[in-house]
Amino acid sequence: MQKGHVVNVLDHGYLKLVDWMGTEEDIIRAARMSTGRGFERWDAGEVCKQCRVPKEEIFGSVPVPQPATESGEPCWHDWVKVPGDEKLLERLYKFNHATPFEMCVIKVEVQAPIMVFREWQRHRTWGYNEFSARYSQMPNLHYLPDLSRVQRQSKTNKQGSAEPMGEEWARNWLELVEEEQGDVYERYDWAIKEGLANELARIDTPVSRYSKMQGIVCLRNVLAFLTLRKEGGAQWEIRQFADVLGNFVQALWPRTYALWEEHTFYAKKFSRSEHEKLKSAVAALRLVMDRYTKAGYELEPSVAGAMASLDVLGFAA
Amino acid sequence: MQKGHVVNVLDHGYLKLVDWMGTEEDIIRAARMSTGRGFERWDAGEVCKQCRVPKEEIFGSVPVPQPATESGEPCWHDWVKVPGDEKLLERLYKFNHATPFEMCVIKVEVQAPIMVFREWQRHRTWGYNEFSARYSQMPNLHYLPDLSRVQRQSKTNKQGSAEPMGEEWARNWLELVEEEQGDVYERYDWAIKEGLANELARIDTPVSRYSKMQGIVCLRNVLAFLTLRKEGGAQWEIRQFADVLGNFVQALWPRTYALWEEHTFYAKKFSRSEHEKLKSAVAALRLVMDRYTKAGYELEPSVAGAMASLDVLGFAA
Amino acid sequence: MQKGHVVNVLDHGYLKLVDWMGTEEDIIRAARMSTGRGFERWDAGEVCKQCRVPKEEIFGSVPVPQPATESGEPCWHDWVKVPGDEKLLERLYKFNHATPFEMCVIKVEVQAPIMVFREWQRHRTWGYNEFSARYSQMPNLHYLPDLSRVQRQSKTNKQGSAEPMGEEWARNWLELVEEEQGDVYERYDWAIKEGLANELARIDTPVSRYSKMQGIVCLRNVLAFLTLRKEGGAQWEIRQFADVLGNFVQALWPRTYALWEEHTFYAKKFSRSEHEKLKSAVAALRLVMDRYTKAGYELEPSVAGAMASLDVLGFAA
Amino acid sequence: MQKGHVVNVLDHGYLKLVDWMGTEEDIIRAARMSTGRGFERWDAGEVCKQCRVPKEEIFGSVPVPQPATESGEPCWHDWVKVPGDEKLLERLYKFNHATPFEMCVIKVEVQAPIMVFREWQRHRTWGYNEFSARYSQMPNLHYLPDLSRVQRQSKTNKQGSAEPMGEEWARNWLELVEEEQGDVYERYDWAIKEGLANELARIDTPVSRYSKMQGIVCLRNVLAFLTLRKEGGAQWEIRQFADVLGNFVQALWPRTYALWEEHTFYAKKFSRSEHEKLKSAVAALRLVMDRYTKAGYELEPSVAGAMASLDVLGFAA
Repeated sequence: MQKGHVVNVLDHGYLKLVDWMGTEEDIIRAARMSTGRGFERWDAGEVCKQCRVPKEEIFGSVPVPQPATESGEPCWHDWVKVPGDEKLLERLYKFNHATPFEMCVIKVEVQAPIMVFREWQRHRTWGYNEFSARYSQMPNLHYLPDLSRVQRQSKTNKQGSAEPMGEEWARNWLELVEEEQGDVYERYDWAIKEGLANELARIDTPVSRYSKMQGIVCLRNVLAFLTLRKEGGAQWEIRQFADVLGNFVQALWPRTYALWEEHTFYAKKFSRSEHEKLKSAVAALRLVMDRYTKAGYELEPSVAGAMASLDVLGFAA
Repeated sequence: MQKGHVVNVLDHGYLKLVDWMGTEEDIIRAARMSTGRGFERWDAGEVCKQCRVPKEEIFGSVPVPQPATESGEPCWHDWVKVPGDEKLLERLYKFNHATPFEMCVIKVEVQAPIMVFREWQRHRTWGYNEFSARYSQMPNLHYLPDLSRVQRQSKTNKQGSAEPMGEEWARNWLELVEEEQGDVYERYDWAIKEGLANELARIDTPVSRYSKMQGIVCLRNVLAFLTLRKEGGAQWEIRQFADVLGNFVQALWPRTYALWEEHTFYAKKFSRSEHEKLKSAVAALRLVMDRYTKAGYELEPSVAGAMASLDVLGFAA
Repeated sequence: MQKGHVVNVLDHGYLKLVDWMGTEEDIIRAARMSTGRGFERWDAGEVCKQCRVPKEEIFGSVPVPQPATESGEPCWHDWVKVPGDEKLLERLYKFNHATPFEMCVIKVEVQAPIMVFREWQRHRTWGYNEFSARYSQMPNLHYLPDLSRVQRQSKTNKQGSAEPMGEEWARNWLELVEEEQGDVYERYDWAIKEGLANELARIDTPVSRYSKMQGIVCLRNVLAFLTLRKEGGAQWEIRQFADVLGNFVQALWPRTYALWEEHTFYAKKFSRSEHEKLKSAVAALRLVMDRYTKAGYELEPSVAGAMASLDVLGFAA
Repeated sequence: MQKGHVVNVLDHGYLKLVDWMGTEEDIIRAARMSTGRGFERWDAGEVCKQCRVPKEEIFGSVPVPQPATESGEPCWHDWVKVPGDEKLLERLYKFNHATPFEMCVIKVEVQAPIMVFREWQRHRTWGYNEFSARYSQMPNLHYLPDLSRVQRQSKTNKQGSAEPMGEEWARNWLELVEEEQGDVYERYDWAIKEGLANELARIDTPVSRYSKMQGIVCLRNVLAFLTLRKEGGAQWEIRQFADVLGNFVQALWPRTYALWEEHTFYAKKFSRSEHEKLKSAVAALRLVMDRYTKAGYELEPSVAGAMASLDVLGFAA
């Protein structure tokens, strides 16, 4: 993904990748401060015990000059097997060694309705620079939902939406909203032309009006943002931006994004008592299975595999 | 000032002191971690060299039991003069030893227009909990400026206001704004009654509508907030809240507030080159004065005092 | 727990509760900003639909004056069942509505070896004020581990300890360490008496030497600290402090601490692929159970309960 | 300055520029979010009113294709004078519009004594990854001050150093320190070879021992770091690192660094009452000057210039 890459979001919004810093190799390099070594190789293989060069770089088709040791002498290489730095990246992520993920940074430009910015800017780990309606006149740009987005209040989730309102009602309401946005803007525009101060003229700016900002955040905290804002409970509108932002993060740091999906976003957490109940239930089922085999029945090999999985996952018989 | 103290701000807003923690003695205690001692006495006077008790507490009208030393034995007191902890507090403030001022905390409740919250919540050192228009219907409460606040766009300050717009124009505009606020709210109320999801019905909420939040922040950072938001360049509306918040801070931590006024808010900073010019100008004036006295004229004693001030302030002859 | 409560930790350290602010009722009050209501009652029961007073307070043995409504008129009470605010607190915690937990604050004083402070102060959400060896002479106080703590380097955990080193070796090593600490301190003390600057004399301060600090942090972030520092992978020494700090937090905010134990500290997280494997294994076992019952065998009622648990936990048949 | 640039600091330390992001043009672009425009030109001159291209780029020696407007049509250019974006950068800095300066980031690697890291890591706006003595054996590398740095305790500044201790004393003390560092390391090395856990063996690590870390921070906060750590009151050792870090910042963002020098580091702040005294003194001098001229004496033109400076600086007659 290139700097300047833009994706349109909602009816008039967009997300632009302005800049970014740091590769996944740099995450490893920062984490390796703890041992004094740097990045070696992503996959399992061999590196030199002294100078840590991967074996392929020496014996590969393209000859690589023999790297010198710190003392200035050439290194005679003593090969040793390493599990590969992908394992280290996973361990860092899985066991909450979070600071190496602060070593990468992303800067984006966002055009979005103010209602989206109101949620976004509650994330205090970002730096923000937003359009100022005290300085300049805002453009006549408002968010009008799609017909299918005009949904009923959810009964079960007090902050959520449920089934559509019905097409006719929705069409009518959208017309009203559009007219309202137009009328309010017209009076805003007129008051500014009359010479009223910008900071007063904007007094009735609807939160559906589009504003613009740049935001900067490190990889650790953009993942925290995605965890909250890609989630089903987040308002649909900000989720559209979070989805695109997630794509940016995935393009720039694919291994880390996959780890976030595996260990955070799609992971399943059981509370202490849920976990207890789960263990009891599995134990009960294993007892039934034992009786079944004791009764002389046979099991397919796949069941043995399932039992092995349970052992690994901590559900020992 | 008591917990629960409320001050009305703007037409429908308020600021309430919900809670607070830490006294100015506690700031001294935290700072004294560096020496292992605690708070002693605000004013200059004598304390015991060993047990650090102020002399007045022993010899005062109300007899105080002789404090025991750490070893358990009574202390025979060896009086030593100290400059008083007010000096320490001033030194901490003046020389940017800022962390002791993080040891006090204030929690407030704010009802204010969304346009004020949009500026307030850019301060990332606070914790916030705001009313959610996704959960609940917002009340029909909007900010309508006073007649005198209906000001022209400033020519010199692109984000500021200038002279009033004229009474008739202002009256007319305020009527329009009030009507607009009423109309938008009516449609909002109707859509919610029709069953539309709260998070959609609020789409055209004007930023003049009142919302409500609790905010918590430490003394160090509330002062940083006041520095920016009590200042003339801040929008008039948030300044009204900052002024009241400043009064709360002054009531709770009066010495610190006075130091903030003296060394920050009403202090005067000259840039390097301004300071150079200032020094040259003062030197030139002193030369003129020298010539004047050499010419046989006499000066009043007050001029000598002024010269002494200049010496102290670094404008040596 | 009272302010000033002290617990000794390690050989010369301690943790003191200096101050704290905010109750669990205050957490509810902050969270209820979203609806405009306040704290009502912890347990399930009835409150008045209008004035939200719990029924017991009106009909209890101690008569309570009938609360007036906002309009000033007495309220005639219309009772409605509520699930109790404990449910809300749980929901806030479980679904990561974290900001209300920033509304409580704890301030502690810590005496600990510098090696512990080096880990502690990496937590950037606290405010700290530590003893300064540039200002004052450090006391002659060093950490010397217990005999049983003198452990081998772990083979499996590169940053961990394993079995004891053997008593004789340990005794010998501890003697060496103690002598070393004494010698280094003696030269430090001598250099200061000779007039060397404090900031230089302390150059060889061992990280086992005790220092002292005050720290302040909100409830949200003290829980984040506990999650990392009470955990088995944290160094044993800081864990001793984290355990005591955990006791403080539990005493002050018991419901929240229990939620942290249930949903964070003792919760069990399965990654996406682990969860997939777990679901497959349970499904396989359920198939076996089905065959077992189809073969004519009967199951105890407890197995039915286990199956119901599995359904609730998302392992539908 | 290139990535990877290294400067040696103290006897065994260094500062390396690992990476950085954002130019001063990017600071302008972020700030211009408030108006919707981007970077135009640093110096005063003309830009097109519509497409904002600088005039030189069109009429310069190298022909530039005529830029198209947003609508896709070529722009016919309507030239307008602008003060140049250097003015905007200065205004941002001077009036504490600090967030645009968060849009640049610097990442460095530091090898420094632990005593320096103890001060450095108190800055909570950085991200850090340091060598871990729990994981790995620390190298035998210790800070030994130069002879001239062996200074007396200051009488006036309790945390400062004064004149040298005398060469003989210094030489003797340095020998003792070096021996101490060697002995402690020898026992450390031996205990690790014996199999003692790293995290225990390092118990007497002197704070003079070198450690290593990577740190990342935004431009706004690196300037805050420099303000505190380049200042005369900071310990000499960390000042050596801050000076080099300042050179890095100056090389990367020279205009901003100059503004920091002009408006922060070398600026002179007078407290409210100091400013009052200064104004009185200047007024008194101006009166003397008036009398001098009224007495018939003449003044050189340079004095008139000085008076004009005073007017501009707010010392009106």
